[in-house]
Amino acid sequence: MSEVGIWFGIEQEISLSGGRFQNCLREIRNCARDVEDEKKGIRINKEDWEKLHVHIASYNNFPTAAGLASSAAGFACLVFTLGKVMNVKEDYGELSSIARQGSGSACRSIYGGFVKWCMGKNNDGSDSIAVQLADEAHWNDLVIIIAVVSSKQKETSSTSGMRDSVETSPLLQYRAQTIVPNRVLKMEEAIKSRNFESFARLTCADSNQFHAVCMDTSPPIFYMNDTSHRIISLVEKWNQSEGTPQVAYTFDAGPNAVLIAPNRKNAALLLQKLLYCFPPQDHDLSSYMVGDKSILSDAGLNSMEDVEALQAPAEMKTSNRKFKGDVSYFICSRLGAGPKVVTEETQALIDSVTGLPKGV
Amino acid sequence: MSEVGIWFGIEQEISLSGGRFQNCLREIRNCARDVEDEKKGIRINKEDWEKLHVHIASYNNFPTAAGLASSAAGFACLVFTLGKVMNVKEDYGELSSIARQGSGSACRSIYGGFVKWCMGKNNDGSDSIAVQLADEAHWNDLVIIIAVVSSKQKETSSTSGMRDSVETSPLLQYRAQTIVPNRVLKMEEAIKSRNFESFARLTCADSNQFHAVCMDTSPPIFYMNDTSHRIISLVEKWNQSEGTPQVAYTFDAGPNAVLIAPNRKNAALLLQKLLYCFPPQDHDLSSYMVGDKSILSDAGLNSMEDVEALQAPAEMKTSNRKFKGDVSYFICSRLGAGPKVVTEETQALIDSVTGLPKGV
Repeated sequence: MSEVGIWFGIEQEISLSGGRFQNCLREIRNCARDVEDEKKGIRINKEDWEKLHVHIASYNNFPTAAGLASSAAGFACLVFTLGKVMNVKEDYGELSSIARQGSGSACRSIYGGFVKWCMGKNNDGSDSIAVQLADEAHWNDLVIIIAVVSSKQKETSSTSGMRDSVETSPLLQYRAQTIVPNRVLKMEEAIKSRNFESFARLTCADSNQFHAVCMDTSPPIFYMNDTSHRIISLVEKWNQSEGTPQVAYTFDAGPNAVLIAPNRKNAALLLQKLLYCFPPQDHDLSSYMVGDKSILSDAGLNSMEDVEALQAPAEMKTSNRKFKGDVSYFICSRLGAGPKVVTEETQALIDSVTGLPKGV
Repeated sequence: MSEVGIWFGIEQEISLSGGRFQNCLREIRNCARDVEDEKKGIRINKEDWEKLHVHIASYNNFPTAAGLASSAAGFACLVFTLGKVMNVKEDYGELSSIARQGSGSACRSIYGGFVKWCMGKNNDGSDSIAVQLADEAHWNDLVIIIAVVSSKQKETSSTSGMRDSVETSPLLQYRAQTIVPNRVLKMEEAIKSRNFESFARLTCADSNQFHAVCMDTSPPIFYMNDTSHRIISLVEKWNQSEGTPQVAYTFDAGPNAVLIAPNRKNAALLLQKLLYCFPPQDHDLSSYMVGDKSILSDAGLNSMEDVEALQAPAEMKTSNRKFKGDVSYFICSRLGAGPKVVTEETQALIDSVTGLPKGV
């Protein structure tokens, strides 16, 4: 299995020789079991997995390496899928621990809904696993709008960035030891009781503090850019004018804004403000919104004429600041269900006859 | 004296009714003494200052309210000058305490050279004064290049920003109590021994941490922008490629970079890198450099042709990134001597015959 590559769509074959891939492959192979499928006439003894080759094809509907946890999703999917293929019986907690060795936050992406990554106590990290706090149905009013600010590859990978922060930021340890544990408890409570105000305040404050620690790193790491700052300012002004949070924002290791609204109404209001400030560059409204496009009609935005007729948000002082082209596109989504096995042949990326990625 | 306004150049008369001005005026008036100048035929008893009016004219060769300590310079100058006019005998420490009531950092600007702002222990702040660590001659090799990134008024004033940080940033107190006192000691040592490596590392790390705390404020404060980040990246890459700091950077409450080189050679090398990345927009090289223009010839940049012929710095990966127009202009300067009395009539802003600002 060490010879295989991953095809990203049909575009690119990449090597799996890197340590992060090899860690995951080794660990999941250690859990491999006998596979028997009488209907398909398949029988593989677990000892034989060593000798077999596997074709892996991967497709991402999120921008890759832009700080939107594409590697987390990818590694979770890889570990989950190989686990299914090799009849692995380990539970989700153990799978999350394997995925974590590919990309730290991949341990969370094994689950759907709300997930907590437990730090663990062992030096070898073996008990650093993720647990699900609540599934995606627990708080299904939430609407997520992502502003994809730039899909160019970021300068600092989140893995090396975090290592530099641990080694050089004087503020990181204080944050990790004193501030985060308390916030995690409050966040669990907010999720449990679906308290959006508390959820939003914690989300925004912790996103900002994460980026503060990045800036306190030597050399400093800047994941957010001017467009990210403008989106924060837009949300903060709205939240302040209403007195309570209308929307939460969080930024991972990149400039893209993940905006969380408590309901469709607020998501639609948010979209009006966002499209006032960041109208599409090429006048193609439909391709400017990926995912749940129906949020556009909720916001009354059925054509470019509707976008052009938008009024400046009342809480914004600078009424005519439009930043066309600064956002590549938006994604509208909801809490997801985690990895699942696709059963329809049309959805599969591997051709079941040739065993090769479709289109290769 | 409560009726007077300040003329900024001949452009604008501004009111002095604000609390910050009134604090300074009240305090300095409390120190006023008898003035007698036989040659000019002037005699004012200290009780009479209450009844007299003063015209104040002020001119700033730095951009105002852009986060380059223009208010610090202005208040230090105001307090110093009124002190001279009213024959105030208080020492510089006491003057610094009065200036501080106009703008915190103005207490430092009463002196030249290297100045330390002592926190003090009294609740009323009366012992929060500045002391001079070394005069401007102590380390006169240092060359300062300022990149004026944007002269538009900043959204958050440094005074209100600092108050918000004190009230809402969980990291600020840790920084103030645990990190800063130690850094101040190290910085005093670095200045004393003219240790540029230590000076530069402390300067950059502390600038970044100040901005980290601003980001940890609720709502977050962003003084730096994409251009600031690019300048930091340029310096960090150079410093890393050489193994030791070639230049230090620091950003106050705004996007402008203050870059400190240990000598003219490094300042000239820095300027080459800066002008490669940020060439002047309007092809006027001479007005692109304010202050000591001779640094341009040190850098071999005598014409726009020289700028256009600049090669990409070896340590920069992205060779063709030129950000024309992102820097308004540069200032080249050195450590200053603090406020001084100008004696030549041509330098005065007030007409000695009319008593009015010149040109009004």
